[in-house]
Amino acid sequence: MDAAFAEYLDEFTRRDWETLDPDAVADPVRVAVVGLGWFAREWALPGIARSAYTEATVVTDVDAGAVEAVAAERDLTGVTPEELRSGAAADEYDAVYVATPNATHLEYVEAAAAQGKAVLCEKPLEVTPERARELVAACHDAGVPLMVGYRMQTDPAVRRLRDLLDAGVAGDVIHVHATMSQTMLGELGSDTDQWRLDPELSGGCAVMDLGVYPLNTTRFALREDPVRVSGRTRSEHEAFADVDEHASFRLEFPGDVDAFCTVSQNAQHASRLEVTGTDARLILDPAFYEREDRGFAVVRDGTRVDVDFEQVHQIEEEFAYFGHQLLAGEPFHADGEHALTDMRALDGVYESAETGRPVELGD
Amino acid sequence: MDAAFAEYLDEFTRRDWETLDPDAVADPVRVAVVGLGWFAREWALPGIARSAYTEATVVTDVDAGAVEAVAAERDLTGVTPEELRSGAAADEYDAVYVATPNATHLEYVEAAAAQGKAVLCEKPLEVTPERARELVAACHDAGVPLMVGYRMQTDPAVRRLRDLLDAGVAGDVIHVHATMSQTMLGELGSDTDQWRLDPELSGGCAVMDLGVYPLNTTRFALREDPVRVSGRTRSEHEAFADVDEHASFRLEFPGDVDAFCTVSQNAQHASRLEVTGTDARLILDPAFYEREDRGFAVVRDGTRVDVDFEQVHQIEEEFAYFGHQLLAGEPFHADGEHALTDMRALDGVYESAETGRPVELGD
Repeated sequence: MDAAFAEYLDEFTRRDWETLDPDAVADPVRVAVVGLGWFAREWALPGIARSAYTEATVVTDVDAGAVEAVAAERDLTGVTPEELRSGAAADEYDAVYVATPNATHLEYVEAAAAQGKAVLCEKPLEVTPERARELVAACHDAGVPLMVGYRMQTDPAVRRLRDLLDAGVAGDVIHVHATMSQTMLGELGSDTDQWRLDPELSGGCAVMDLGVYPLNTTRFALREDPVRVSGRTRSEHEAFADVDEHASFRLEFPGDVDAFCTVSQNAQHASRLEVTGTDARLILDPAFYEREDRGFAVVRDGTRVDVDFEQVHQIEEEFAYFGHQLLAGEPFHADGEHALTDMRALDGVYESAETGRPVELGD
Repeated sequence: MDAAFAEYLDEFTRRDWETLDPDAVADPVRVAVVGLGWFAREWALPGIARSAYTEATVVTDVDAGAVEAVAAERDLTGVTPEELRSGAAADEYDAVYVATPNATHLEYVEAAAAQGKAVLCEKPLEVTPERARELVAACHDAGVPLMVGYRMQTDPAVRRLRDLLDAGVAGDVIHVHATMSQTMLGELGSDTDQWRLDPELSGGCAVMDLGVYPLNTTRFALREDPVRVSGRTRSEHEAFADVDEHASFRLEFPGDVDAFCTVSQNAQHASRLEVTGTDARLILDPAFYEREDRGFAVVRDGTRVDVDFEQVHQIEEEFAYFGHQLLAGEPFHADGEHALTDMRALDGVYESAETGRPVELGD
């Protein structure tokens, strides 16, 4: 038992999906990065560079200055969005990473699919379930692999939490609490993120941008999809006049397991996921932000174990998985169909917030 | 500022309601304890004894052996329930503390009111809003003071949390998460608690017994009452065939502030209240159980302050407040009307669980 526990600690950050040798990668997947907002510059490009399975080769953005600056800084090929879509530099990349405003995912993914390139698209997939389905169909019809950027799914803390659930350490899951909030206007603060305030570009704000984390992470951890959702949204600050500033929603999972989720773009920073089972509580706190360390605790019968592990670069893990699966010829867990389930649930939160009634999910 | 912080720390466990000198109490309020279950024996009787403002003088229970044992151990007058109700020992007590199964609160409170005795009645007040209204009316008509046993309201951690909200430290409240669970069959385990499994005696289990804590504590902290409630209940273990084993409910407070509450009588022990505001998060964890220390944390702009304070005997505080207010001729915050609001909300959770629709509260 002690040995098993020691092994557990030693291997906390293991990549259980990794079958290739990262030191033996001769030709990493060449990635074109579409959209050079804060996240792409600060996290995606460094993550791609750190990952043994990927390298960035091409960048584009509607902001020509950003393209020029990033291309020069990282010695990459900078192209215009039109050039990217037309395939002008298509021989320089194997895959396209789309990190643009939600409503423009479709056009770039369609272009990448037409070029036969693998796609890693940020979540939420698009602004509506309909457009998301078009996006998935474009990849399917072209026969190109599509992964959706659920960075929590390759985070070791989330995977170890799921391992514990799989092993029955928590017993039966009774309920889940999850919360994610930030002061979007202050904490991120850059102009490039303000598209989230435009419903045409974002499809919504707190639910679309943050809600997807508690939703998808709970789905991933429980290996179940919600069957019903109810929610409420509200906005007070004038900047959020056209979109949801705060939201709270209940996800009903099979077996009457409820996940209570709250998200806010204008509240004190919080980031927590707690799964309460008959036999243990599993706690990630902080849980969801790439820019802070993850916390991991297991509480069982009066004993609380806080696991303090070597933090990974969350986006390196995501891109390593993306590149690894492509090189290994393996499918992605977070594929298009997986992401469509989120799109229906997010849409259901908004619908429920309007009608005041729960919304049935399912196919 | 530093001085203010030091003062805050020094006075964390202060009784802000106390105007009398506890060392100068000549005649403490004499209390008859009705119901000698686990809580009364382990917590209420010691709390009454510790409090300067109260002393136990009479005990009763349907279990004659328990009466005999407790009376002998503590040198008290033991009477039968019939004797208590008929007032046989009425000259030996000034107040009656009712800690019997929920469905029997009414008969004892009616008897105490008829005797002109002050009443401290456990929560929830009764098994239905109707019977609870009868109980409140009995005290009102007899002109006897009624306090309801919300022990969280006199807990310093809860009062300091409310102070911080009052002072605007958390800014505007955005949402609340609260959870309370235990393994009732194992953690408490005594036969006397099994009345909670009988809906005739309890009026329900997880919602009635545990749900009242997140509900009332949130009301107290926010100084608001919920306007709408929706909830779900479920039972799996055969012991809970007739009552709710688990429950989850959403309380909608004015200003669209949602409190997400989960409770379980058969899940891993948890006890947490978290208020997220625009400017701070206030966390009680552990929050609700008399048998564990309270934890108190304030998180604001990346700084987390854990306040490690001298723990009080929570039930001593409750009875000290009860006795103090009687001796000072002051009203109780948690009076009958206050408790009726909870009864409507608890009833609303069950109604919503049946209909699948939110239930409007209010008068």
